[in-house]
Amino acid sequence: MQPIQFRVTCESSNTWARLGELKTPHGVIETPVFMPVGTQASVKAMSPRELVEVGAHIILSNTYHLYLRPGHELIDRAGGLHDFMGWNRSILTDSGGFQVFSLADLRKISEEGVAFRSHLDGSSHFISPEVSMEIQMALGADIAMAFDECAPYPADYSYTKESTELTSRWARRCQAAHTREDQALFGIVQGGMYTDLRRQSADDLVSLDFPGYGIGGLSVGEPKELMYDLLEVTVPHLPKDKPRYLMGVGSPDCLLEGVSRGIDMFDCVLPTRIARHGTVFTKNGPLTVRNAAYSEDFAPLDPGCDCYACQNFSRGYIRHLLRSNEILGVRLTTIHNLRFILRLMENIRRSIAQDTLPELRASFLEEYNQGHI
Amino acid sequence: MQPIQFRVTCESSNTWARLGELKTPHGVIETPVFMPVGTQASVKAMSPRELVEVGAHIILSNTYHLYLRPGHELIDRAGGLHDFMGWNRSILTDSGGFQVFSLADLRKISEEGVAFRSHLDGSSHFISPEVSMEIQMALGADIAMAFDECAPYPADYSYTKESTELTSRWARRCQAAHTREDQALFGIVQGGMYTDLRRQSADDLVSLDFPGYGIGGLSVGEPKELMYDLLEVTVPHLPKDKPRYLMGVGSPDCLLEGVSRGIDMFDCVLPTRIARHGTVFTKNGPLTVRNAAYSEDFAPLDPGCDCYACQNFSRGYIRHLLRSNEILGVRLTTIHNLRFILRLMENIRRSIAQDTLPELRASFLEEYNQGHI
Repeated sequence: MQPIQFRVTCESSNTWARLGELKTPHGVIETPVFMPVGTQASVKAMSPRELVEVGAHIILSNTYHLYLRPGHELIDRAGGLHDFMGWNRSILTDSGGFQVFSLADLRKISEEGVAFRSHLDGSSHFISPEVSMEIQMALGADIAMAFDECAPYPADYSYTKESTELTSRWARRCQAAHTREDQALFGIVQGGMYTDLRRQSADDLVSLDFPGYGIGGLSVGEPKELMYDLLEVTVPHLPKDKPRYLMGVGSPDCLLEGVSRGIDMFDCVLPTRIARHGTVFTKNGPLTVRNAAYSEDFAPLDPGCDCYACQNFSRGYIRHLLRSNEILGVRLTTIHNLRFILRLMENIRRSIAQDTLPELRASFLEEYNQGHI
Repeated sequence: MQPIQFRVTCESSNTWARLGELKTPHGVIETPVFMPVGTQASVKAMSPRELVEVGAHIILSNTYHLYLRPGHELIDRAGGLHDFMGWNRSILTDSGGFQVFSLADLRKISEEGVAFRSHLDGSSHFISPEVSMEIQMALGADIAMAFDECAPYPADYSYTKESTELTSRWARRCQAAHTREDQALFGIVQGGMYTDLRRQSADDLVSLDFPGYGIGGLSVGEPKELMYDLLEVTVPHLPKDKPRYLMGVGSPDCLLEGVSRGIDMFDCVLPTRIARHGTVFTKNGPLTVRNAAYSEDFAPLDPGCDCYACQNFSRGYIRHLLRSNEILGVRLTTIHNLRFILRLMENIRRSIAQDTLPELRASFLEEYNQGHI
């Protein structure tokens, strides 16, 4: 018996979108789904009950950060990540690869794994596919991710080819090292910006028969159209009956385009990060409520929004809070941005059920791109 | 008809403590009561619904800060402070005096009022009793405070005498300038550390017949025993049928001692401020959960506490959050500290009703002062 079960419940007739149900040891998730990011075992500024309120059913947490602080062994002794952070819905942990590769000068890659220095204190560490599995099994998320190399952008063909092949070899080692039975392990498709490498990577991974597949190495600086093209090349090589997870993507337009190309899962720091800088999503596009223009604007952040921030507070008040460095300010913008994205996902799922996703995409993007008047 | 009504519902037989009911335009408050401080129109790290959850019925906000940012006129246009900050229970605003006098080199006092420079941008301002009333009427709290001079500690007799007399003259000007009918204006008793000046100030103020009285200029660095002695000198000069508010006091021991000496209202930044530095109240005294000693302590902050933090999270997790600069950390310590103080006030009120306040005071302080083992 697999730790997770996935079934497609409805398919779009005129896009590749599908509705699905993903069962984990911690609940049932309707897909397509967006996963808020809780890097250090906390979705920044949010409490678990607020995450439930905005409609989150699964969150992502970062293996690299938790390994360094407070340490996966401590979290294991606390009863695992769910108990440690007081979140009893589902969790996915990344492999630590992406963060380690982002360290640039601080890391060195070999066939065996990656040696790196901590961004916190400069101490030396080594993560291999086996170590990543050990850490993720200790954290005990519902879904773990294979340890991959995410090639930089841009990268030449030969570097990307070697990197993609390394990712395939590492995926096999991850699978061999992963033994936790209440946790699923997803493979990650790489291949950079090269269509043949994407196809090859997908075929390699699928031959290993993972219960789900991440698509990594996209949204790393390339034009969005290129990302969409690469999805169209990759997705047909993935099995229809397994969840497909586009890693690190979460702007409203990319969510709509990703779902239309058959993606089931997304994560991104964007909604929470821009919230902390005073920018909120609205149906008319992003609005920087920190700006002086909103000091006497007593309308909600996004009129019509059902979130706690919009139901109770004005742009003018939230602008005052942000400007005065009051914590409540970023709490309210974060609640709003997550609710905005999670409600968009609800609308996307409803439109797939009604087979009207292209209409939703067109009307949403028209209003969104028109901006504020 | 007065904007507020106060009635004593029960008196302690062996202390000066009493139970009361304070009705304002925004609700009924059981006294003795503690008021959390929301300096900049936000109780730091808390949302209004969390304030309701921890049991707050009235909060204090600071006139000086709101005058400078976002400005009382803006708050007036937003419909007043209650609407602006989304808090529909009671509010008390201070007069701005205490903050202005804390500016030290940046202010100059005259009979007319106080000239000062903003701590934010150095701009020049002038607050007089009349200006303080204008600002507080625009803010629209349920209770406004007279503009007083709070003498520094220590201060010699002649400085304190002049300052106290100035406060009495200013109180009269405040009363003349205050015209808002849905807002009560409290006088403030000063007199520094001198018993005769305390008595004189109380008599001066009482002759003006305010609907309530603040006791200011205490807890400014003097020994606690001296503060208790001065309360014993002052309180008998205040009318029995009006609320008595000990300003800026809120440590657990001072709350118990203040109530025992006939105080009905308190405010203090202490619970929220130490929370942000990682220290929490427990029945065994303060605990600095930020310390490494608590990294693997998976007990609640204060076992037996009914707050959201204690019901759902461990010391080890909260320590991790604080150390990682995660906002949720200070949110949880703040919720806990406010709930701890507000539950202490609930227990104090219950003990007055049962005429067992001395027993509560003895048993609470014995456990509290014993510290952690």
